[in-house]
Amino acid sequence: MKTYIGIDLGGTNVRVAKISEAGEILASVKGPSYGKEGTGKVMENLKSLIREIPNWKNCEAMGIGVPGPVNTNIGVMNLDTNLPGFKGYPLASELKKEFGMPVFLDNDANVAGLAEAMVGAGKDFESIYYITISTGIGGAFIWHKQVISGSHGFGGEIANIIIDRSREKINYLNVGAIENEASGTAIVRKGRALFPQEDIQHAGQIFQLADQGNKKAIQLKKEIIQDLGQLLATLSCAVDPEAFVLGGGVMKSADSFFTEVIQSFQAQSHTMVGDTQFLMAECEEPGVIGAAMLPMSRGL
Amino acid sequence: MKTYIGIDLGGTNVRVAKISEAGEILASVKGPSYGKEGTGKVMENLKSLIREIPNWKNCEAMGIGVPGPVNTNIGVMNLDTNLPGFKGYPLASELKKEFGMPVFLDNDANVAGLAEAMVGAGKDFESIYYITISTGIGGAFIWHKQVISGSHGFGGEIANIIIDRSREKINYLNVGAIENEASGTAIVRKGRALFPQEDIQHAGQIFQLADQGNKKAIQLKKEIIQDLGQLLATLSCAVDPEAFVLGGGVMKSADSFFTEVIQSFQAQSHTMVGDTQFLMAECEEPGVIGAAMLPMSRGL
Repeated sequence: MKTYIGIDLGGTNVRVAKISEAGEILASVKGPSYGKEGTGKVMENLKSLIREIPNWKNCEAMGIGVPGPVNTNIGVMNLDTNLPGFKGYPLASELKKEFGMPVFLDNDANVAGLAEAMVGAGKDFESIYYITISTGIGGAFIWHKQVISGSHGFGGEIANIIIDRSREKINYLNVGAIENEASGTAIVRKGRALFPQEDIQHAGQIFQLADQGNKKAIQLKKEIIQDLGQLLATLSCAVDPEAFVLGGGVMKSADSFFTEVIQSFQAQSHTMVGDTQFLMAECEEPGVIGAAMLPMSRGL
Repeated sequence: MKTYIGIDLGGTNVRVAKISEAGEILASVKGPSYGKEGTGKVMENLKSLIREIPNWKNCEAMGIGVPGPVNTNIGVMNLDTNLPGFKGYPLASELKKEFGMPVFLDNDANVAGLAEAMVGAGKDFESIYYITISTGIGGAFIWHKQVISGSHGFGGEIANIIIDRSREKINYLNVGAIENEASGTAIVRKGRALFPQEDIQHAGQIFQLADQGNKKAIQLKKEIIQDLGQLLATLSCAVDPEAFVLGGGVMKSADSFFTEVIQSFQAQSHTMVGDTQFLMAECEEPGVIGAAMLPMSRGL
């Protein structure tokens, strides 16, 4: 049985795991990533964690998920907002040299999507569009088990897709960008504006209020459903995936709203694509599992 | 040198050509397709045209472009609005049996996009999103020289992408769908409403009026530019192609408006993707050339 090293390198924490080709975690270590302390400290720490994995030398290859867009051809980050100093840093080639095995890099959402496509909810489908609705909104298109990372590492960076031009300007994103309208952060922002007397801490509270019959919450929920339905219909026009796989914190409230999102998708789509599948993300550790699957997706 | 049969099967006309692997047309025949007369007549006519191609037996394989979405796995059309009777008809397998070579099927926009990716404006790029702005608006995403046709043959069927919810309902498409806002048909419709006294026959007249300083035409042109810029930014978020390749009749006026579309794209996109390339379609016969490239894109 082939095994791979999967690394989930975040701005705060890092996790390294040995993963079987079936996606089982065989060994795992984690710790702080020292993301604020520069590339030297991050790399030194990472290398030492990798060496803690039993028999790491027997692994075929290594994959790393990082928090930002990646040039997957050369294995470097294109932006380092969340991991200062790593823009252009030869992350993959340095680890390849150190550990003597092929190393692949991609961003965390793409890696999570690949985990779902290979061993998670999307494993039986030829193509999936993975979407995570959490603090932000991210995604990844995986076609024939290959991540379409994009020419600048921006494939699946759907946060900035405009779903309604008539909304208010919130931040650096486009007016009406889906992340500012239907992410967890957006739902909390809108909820607090509607219910200043309530202590709104997460999106689930809005869905709960709506389910209790609160009219303002019902209206907000309706808007979120319409916005997400339009996002899905847009992506379906672009690449027509066999299935969408949805994850992220906001999807914990899926029972309250997701059936209606599917209906909204169908209402805004050609009847021919009406049987597109919608699945909940399944992987419990998509970060390390998906990272470990990167080499497999390239034929290793 | 390998050669292929490329077929452009439309509702009105059909063209059959022998194409070299470099995309040269070595022989070509055309005629009416008898698209209204049913599958028997269409197939009998098509087979007889194929036999007119000199040494067709020496060709490696055959590719066909058809006017509608296709199940590319089994080589049948999913909808037959433009070629009645062909929904579910075993077009590829019947020709395979008759001519003893592999046969591949895809829709006409995907085939045209493949021609651009293989031997046209996109030949030096890893991934392109081809867009045709003509009577309607269609497209195709080609990644590593493979068409992402989609699980229902709807990949690249971008006509129905909503760019502004506040527009008027025009037809069966979504309110604010790009095809109803920026296709040739849409521009003529809007132009006629603005200039009832003029004889508006094609989109180019509107761009000409704008270039002459007509304020209403300038306003309409500005709206079209914004709409197309948003479409391109949306597709970039979805799959981040290295280049967009633009074709279709409306692009004949590209000199008047397309630089501003690129600026609009950039204004609505992350700076990282600002160097995405925009190219004009080059293939003079994308229908037959792209069809002939279908087998090559599958490794034949």
